[in-house]
Amino acid sequence: MANDKSPDKITPRAEDYSRWYLDVIRQAGLAEPAEVVKGCMVIKPHGYAIWEKIQRALDDRFKETGHQNAYFPLLIPESFLKKEAEHVEGFSPELAVVTHAGGQKLEEAYVIRPTSETIIGHFFAKWIQSWRDLPLLINQWANVMRWELRTRMFLRTGEFLWQEGHTAHASHEEAVEEVKRMLKIYAEFAEGHMAMPVVCGVKTESEKFAGAVQSFCIEAMMQDNKALQAGTSHDLGQNFGKAFDVKFQNKEGNQEFVWQTSWGVSTRLIGGLIMTHSDDNGLVLPPKLAPVHVAIVPIFGKGGDEAKVREAGASIEKELKAQGLAAVFDTREHKPGFKYFEWEQKGVPLRIEIGPRDVDANQVTVKDRLATAKETWPRAGLGERVKAYLDTFQNTLFERARKRMNDNTVRVDTWDDFKSVFAGENSKFVMAHWDGTRETEAKIKEELKVTVRCIPLDAPEEPGTCVLTGKPSSRRVLFAKSY
Amino acid sequence: MANDKSPDKITPRAEDYSRWYLDVIRQAGLAEPAEVVKGCMVIKPHGYAIWEKIQRALDDRFKETGHQNAYFPLLIPESFLKKEAEHVEGFSPELAVVTHAGGQKLEEAYVIRPTSETIIGHFFAKWIQSWRDLPLLINQWANVMRWELRTRMFLRTGEFLWQEGHTAHASHEEAVEEVKRMLKIYAEFAEGHMAMPVVCGVKTESEKFAGAVQSFCIEAMMQDNKALQAGTSHDLGQNFGKAFDVKFQNKEGNQEFVWQTSWGVSTRLIGGLIMTHSDDNGLVLPPKLAPVHVAIVPIFGKGGDEAKVREAGASIEKELKAQGLAAVFDTREHKPGFKYFEWEQKGVPLRIEIGPRDVDANQVTVKDRLATAKETWPRAGLGERVKAYLDTFQNTLFERARKRMNDNTVRVDTWDDFKSVFAGENSKFVMAHWDGTRETEAKIKEELKVTVRCIPLDAPEEPGTCVLTGKPSSRRVLFAKSY
Repeated sequence: MANDKSPDKITPRAEDYSRWYLDVIRQAGLAEPAEVVKGCMVIKPHGYAIWEKIQRALDDRFKETGHQNAYFPLLIPESFLKKEAEHVEGFSPELAVVTHAGGQKLEEAYVIRPTSETIIGHFFAKWIQSWRDLPLLINQWANVMRWELRTRMFLRTGEFLWQEGHTAHASHEEAVEEVKRMLKIYAEFAEGHMAMPVVCGVKTESEKFAGAVQSFCIEAMMQDNKALQAGTSHDLGQNFGKAFDVKFQNKEGNQEFVWQTSWGVSTRLIGGLIMTHSDDNGLVLPPKLAPVHVAIVPIFGKGGDEAKVREAGASIEKELKAQGLAAVFDTREHKPGFKYFEWEQKGVPLRIEIGPRDVDANQVTVKDRLATAKETWPRAGLGERVKAYLDTFQNTLFERARKRMNDNTVRVDTWDDFKSVFAGENSKFVMAHWDGTRETEAKIKEELKVTVRCIPLDAPEEPGTCVLTGKPSSRRVLFAKSY
Repeated sequence: MANDKSPDKITPRAEDYSRWYLDVIRQAGLAEPAEVVKGCMVIKPHGYAIWEKIQRALDDRFKETGHQNAYFPLLIPESFLKKEAEHVEGFSPELAVVTHAGGQKLEEAYVIRPTSETIIGHFFAKWIQSWRDLPLLINQWANVMRWELRTRMFLRTGEFLWQEGHTAHASHEEAVEEVKRMLKIYAEFAEGHMAMPVVCGVKTESEKFAGAVQSFCIEAMMQDNKALQAGTSHDLGQNFGKAFDVKFQNKEGNQEFVWQTSWGVSTRLIGGLIMTHSDDNGLVLPPKLAPVHVAIVPIFGKGGDEAKVREAGASIEKELKAQGLAAVFDTREHKPGFKYFEWEQKGVPLRIEIGPRDVDANQVTVKDRLATAKETWPRAGLGERVKAYLDTFQNTLFERARKRMNDNTVRVDTWDDFKSVFAGENSKFVMAHWDGTRETEAKIKEELKVTVRCIPLDAPEEPGTCVLTGKPSSRRVLFAKSY
């Protein structure tokens, strides 16, 4: 019999939400802090398997919409960052710098890419000559590094994995179309695959990407009602085109700077996934991103029964796999209870138990990751029923998360109410009027640690007055504390 | 009409082999030198698409054999490298060093991983307690950096992409089994997917991985008869276990150091692919790794014919896709000849031309990438015929490469013959006796730039005398010039 020591406990959310988050990650085997590399983490197999599913789904969408993958250098000459004024201001405090290589001090230092607009801009300038070379639609899957002071696994780490799309277009109109197309793909992925509802919107001037004309984003609500910026899509205008001299000859024969976009999501999505669905028993995964859909746990019973349970379990595994499902028949030498606990903590959507009595009665015992009681299902037609059930479960998770977001989104009209919603560590999604100035944003941020998460794309025009200054406003914006 | 300027020419192999190699890469759009980042390159979409196919095929094999992917930090504390004496000696001349981050000088510098045995050893020590945690079978897809003086695209670049497998076992025997299992997977992949025949063997002491007990390798012959080390699989013994204190409790309850392996292949494989099959017309790709299997080029003819040609081309594309083939119906505004040239340079295995007369006669015009003449195939049953033809083409490429390797592998017994085979820039695969000493290897390398590529696994015992010193030897080894 293998080691059946009880796994470590998970701190309940109500007791310590931050601790809970880290406990879920540890117990699910998603990642661990690297410690010896400041602010970085190791993504462990279960976490990486989720990332692979995220990658595959997004990559398919990128390719369907005409994008091609490529790979650009990790290192960027330090001088490149300085070519776009806002960009260097935004990123220089976070850079890791390579000063020596091959045993020698370098003439010019390199930075490890914090994002690749600059180096890609340099190559776009070589690749683009005429309007015929446009649009140029490139994506890169890569690691990037931003030296952050305060880090938290998946949400903000020194190094992280991401994809960064970089495109160049012949007109601003086309570029904006691309920015919105990719935002839509992110939103559909978040809601359709992650079962994580999002608000699509535009960032304010103070929150936009350093170097962009305008940044679009998807914002999701975590279980502590704080916002997570889960993906961004930037209209770069001609800012990088001018900085890197990316010109094309237009149809009229004139030289013009290209219009560029960039857009990205990262391993941060896994943090969002955890904080959208998981509970005090550990990780909860939507089937579309679960590396294992079904754990089949045998209860062998006494001597003579083992063979028939083994046979039944193997046949269930085979039937589920034939349905395209990832099923594991867990025959390890642990007690069933140990296995239940482990699969639960790993977020497997469905567990099937099979014992001698189940075999005799042509049935199985089933429990989904959120259920409190077990059900008995007939063995016949199991594969199809499980497949259909997982679709429902995917939907249940989304509806549950959407209800939570709706229930915790409020309209606020007075400063007193605003302060009371955000008292202490509290947060909600607050739709309120704002006078549109940086000063007001800064004051609110300083006093309450609350920021404008975005100006929602679907916010209707509605005259009102700023919740802090009383100055006129034409539409509500989304305020929240955030990660 | 789009720009039909004739693409740049490819230098013939006979004129300048090195130039040819770079021309093929440029004309196929595989990569380009980064220039602004010393020794690094940009992998362009067509090159990256080949890498994705390589990744997918290998990753499937790794998972089938029980390995899990994970991700470890890019940066490694400088002190880690020093813990294994041979390892630091081998890698320290090639390290890129991060000395500053977040605007400050770091207390301890980090190196960008040249390979990850050290950082992974550190985590294995935390993850492994008992024999129950073994074997631990991990793989990582990542970028690594080795600051090389002389670089060549794909074959040796400052930064490159690769996979590195890292496993820990309870016994040396099991570790050696793993080393051989992965070597076999590499060999099967090289021959089965890349159509690139390889010699499997063991590296000599002077050529083995810095820190390994023994290194196994696959060596392939390029068209200039030089060898390319295409993949390696290392028996690390307990070297890293001891350096990073990776211990486990064995079944008898005693503490023991784990036995480790590591194995890797990189974007270098793309260099091998180019130099195995391509010709003076550009890239040649085996169907299993070709991002596009078939290019369908329409010849629209006069006004009224265009519609029927479009319809026929689209239906062919659809039929090929239904066979699981990657087909492109190239309707761009270029002349057919321009398209032929471009697809040829990109290495697309099969071209189908379709003009008004083909449509009328229910036929298509077909030319594979190596053929000198076109064939006429009936339109009926085209999808199946193309699919079968591509299997044959894959095999043809392999047989052609195998014949070339066999024809250029020779047994040599005297030093005069040895020198004459390797005169000037010449190379072959030379099977010759060697006395087994570092001194002899060093002398041969110094005089002729020739090294022992490996001691082939299938080399029979055969008493003889060293080709240089005349001292006794028990089997022949493989000598060649190499990349």
